[in-house]
Amino acid sequence: MQTEAALQRGRNDPGLENPTRRSLLIGSAGAMAAVSLLGFIPLAKGEEPKTLPDYAAWKERNALILHSANTMETKRGAIGNGVITASDRLFVRNNLPAIPESETENPDAWEVHIEGVQNPRTLTVGELKKMGVTTTASVLQCSGNGRAFFPHGASGTQWSVGAAGCVMWTGVPLKDVVEALGGAVAGAKYITSTGGESLPEGIDPKTIVVERSVPTRAMETALLAWEMNDEPLSNTHGGPLRMVVPGYYGVNNVKYVKNIAFTENETDAKIQASGYRIRDVGDKGAPDQPSMWEMNVKSWVTAPLETGSSGRNMIYGVALGGTVQLEKVEVSVDGGKTWKQARFLGPDLGPYAWRPFVLAADLSPGEHRIVSRATDIEGNSQPEGRTDNERGYGHNGWKDHGVTVAIS
Amino acid sequence: MQTEAALQRGRNDPGLENPTRRSLLIGSAGAMAAVSLLGFIPLAKGEEPKTLPDYAAWKERNALILHSANTMETKRGAIGNGVITASDRLFVRNNLPAIPESETENPDAWEVHIEGVQNPRTLTVGELKKMGVTTTASVLQCSGNGRAFFPHGASGTQWSVGAAGCVMWTGVPLKDVVEALGGAVAGAKYITSTGGESLPEGIDPKTIVVERSVPTRAMETALLAWEMNDEPLSNTHGGPLRMVVPGYYGVNNVKYVKNIAFTENETDAKIQASGYRIRDVGDKGAPDQPSMWEMNVKSWVTAPLETGSSGRNMIYGVALGGTVQLEKVEVSVDGGKTWKQARFLGPDLGPYAWRPFVLAADLSPGEHRIVSRATDIEGNSQPEGRTDNERGYGHNGWKDHGVTVAIS
Repeated sequence: MQTEAALQRGRNDPGLENPTRRSLLIGSAGAMAAVSLLGFIPLAKGEEPKTLPDYAAWKERNALILHSANTMETKRGAIGNGVITASDRLFVRNNLPAIPESETENPDAWEVHIEGVQNPRTLTVGELKKMGVTTTASVLQCSGNGRAFFPHGASGTQWSVGAAGCVMWTGVPLKDVVEALGGAVAGAKYITSTGGESLPEGIDPKTIVVERSVPTRAMETALLAWEMNDEPLSNTHGGPLRMVVPGYYGVNNVKYVKNIAFTENETDAKIQASGYRIRDVGDKGAPDQPSMWEMNVKSWVTAPLETGSSGRNMIYGVALGGTVQLEKVEVSVDGGKTWKQARFLGPDLGPYAWRPFVLAADLSPGEHRIVSRATDIEGNSQPEGRTDNERGYGHNGWKDHGVTVAIS
Repeated sequence: MQTEAALQRGRNDPGLENPTRRSLLIGSAGAMAAVSLLGFIPLAKGEEPKTLPDYAAWKERNALILHSANTMETKRGAIGNGVITASDRLFVRNNLPAIPESETENPDAWEVHIEGVQNPRTLTVGELKKMGVTTTASVLQCSGNGRAFFPHGASGTQWSVGAAGCVMWTGVPLKDVVEALGGAVAGAKYITSTGGESLPEGIDPKTIVVERSVPTRAMETALLAWEMNDEPLSNTHGGPLRMVVPGYYGVNNVKYVKNIAFTENETDAKIQASGYRIRDVGDKGAPDQPSMWEMNVKSWVTAPLETGSSGRNMIYGVALGGTVQLEKVEVSVDGGKTWKQARFLGPDLGPYAWRPFVLAADLSPGEHRIVSRATDIEGNSQPEGRTDNERGYGHNGWKDHGVTVAIS
């Protein structure tokens, strides 16, 4: 009965994107127990909780769409035109419930074990803080941002554009830590990070643990962050310590990071082996499919969204290049027939940050389809369409991301 | 009696820096009435109000030193190491009480009159928003920041280092507005901005109005801002519309701006004619003395502040160049005998922004005097000492700004 109800929830509560349903699909008594252990609030399809969950109570409720207790999206109209997303407006997406605040009361005591290096060691945040520091502006974006636009009904949270934000991360460069421990072992090809969330009993940990591998090329820019936007990193967003891989999709930025291993192979945890893989609609996930690592070039309009007055309108939006610096953003007010280059707004915070843009356009009365198209310095441009894929990942097609505005 | 009590308050509540005492010094019945009209809370020397005034109730109380209801300083330990100061930690310094929130409910309807241009016009914020937009990171700093370090007891709020912050301003470039109105009249040498605060009856408006002139060279970078840190500009900080002159001392960034005039001469308002002038101790203010316009190069340490453990310490601070890009910051842990170059932390937001810096230093047990010294790309460096001046303006001497830290 409960399983049936869960299945009815369909697209809002699916697979790996939400351990509740994932557990329910396992269908064992252990998994059922896990549901309550995990403590998620189940929602009927289309239902939105009225209040923020405790661990995110400090968020700006009016800026967010609450998909579930562990998935909250920034409203398109609340993204603003700033180079940095205010913490209380930033989206939330937790694969497992956040660790309790009680575990973060003494953040400097949080421990992370580093292995696959010459001198493996357990380090506290307090020790990391003396090993080096850097501040990097980087876009945090869920792999499934834009999923709502897939017509096949990709399972998972139905994010539109707001499972993304640009924040400042402060922490120690991972390479400084690795260097201090004698360097990575020979043959290491991946950096494998493990989250510190409590796992429910009765389930194979590999099926539920948040453990992600990224290629060692990410070491040049990765950091172990203890601050976000110049404040101690909250447990809502992975504090006391989070692995931050600038330009990589959100899932690789492992929260409450407890273990970092330099490994020859990717982890066989489900979230890596079959989860977060680009595959044809209907296919099962497998390790040989492309993993959600570097983000692709993308942009979307943030204003106007619904209505406007004829004459001069300022069209705003944000654009990101993933790991590649942006070159330009073009905007069309006729659904892509003609384009004009927009102007970037505000300071450039580096290749991993997004860039707000603006275009002054004279709009005549009637409906206008406003779309934007970003191009990076390597010449990668957003495609018109989308690459359909089972889980609705990585959508950067400009057509679906546009808005229709009625000008009177 | 009341006047006597006011005089007793001495350094905490003086002259132009605080209209309460200024009015009291006038000594007329009209001025006495003005005190209550202005609505400031009088404070005894050294007394700090417990709670934030209504117009600033959204501020982070624990981050601030409340000098008075219209002067609140960011604690040195709350400055952080971010490129941007969070709005709720930013200092407050109002020459007159903030306009009531009721006047800002429809910010787009706020009007500003532009004169001294070919086609003078009154424009609403709504109209300005369609004329152009820019986002500039800029340090906001009170002319009297550092006043507490002057030994002669300069009158005015006893700011230490926290009457400064770096924020993002979004608004229309002033030059776009002027261009749209046909350009400035011939012979214009100053941009004169007038604040929209209500003035009490019975006082010559020229003695109390916030009206400041800056040289027209500031037009290249000035903007009329309606947002701060990607949010609508609050009345606490001068919203709906504020004149922002990047790199200039705070007073020139006129709040609630109602009138902007291109003029041949500086205004004869007291705040310009005799206020905010660098003059010898004991001298009266006069128009021929240097005005507090462009900020000078400056830096200060933000951590550690009091104690630390021996061994590796990370020394943090912030540095600004006024209108000139910074070249470097050096740090000394022995009171200025030896120096090491610090590293800038985080992205460079442009010449008007501050730059956080960090230096890893090995400290032995005992007392350490930690000081910092910034240099801009034109070779201007912070002096060791200070230029004593009547009102305690513009202090950028590195010696006074240091901290003494006990290392155990």
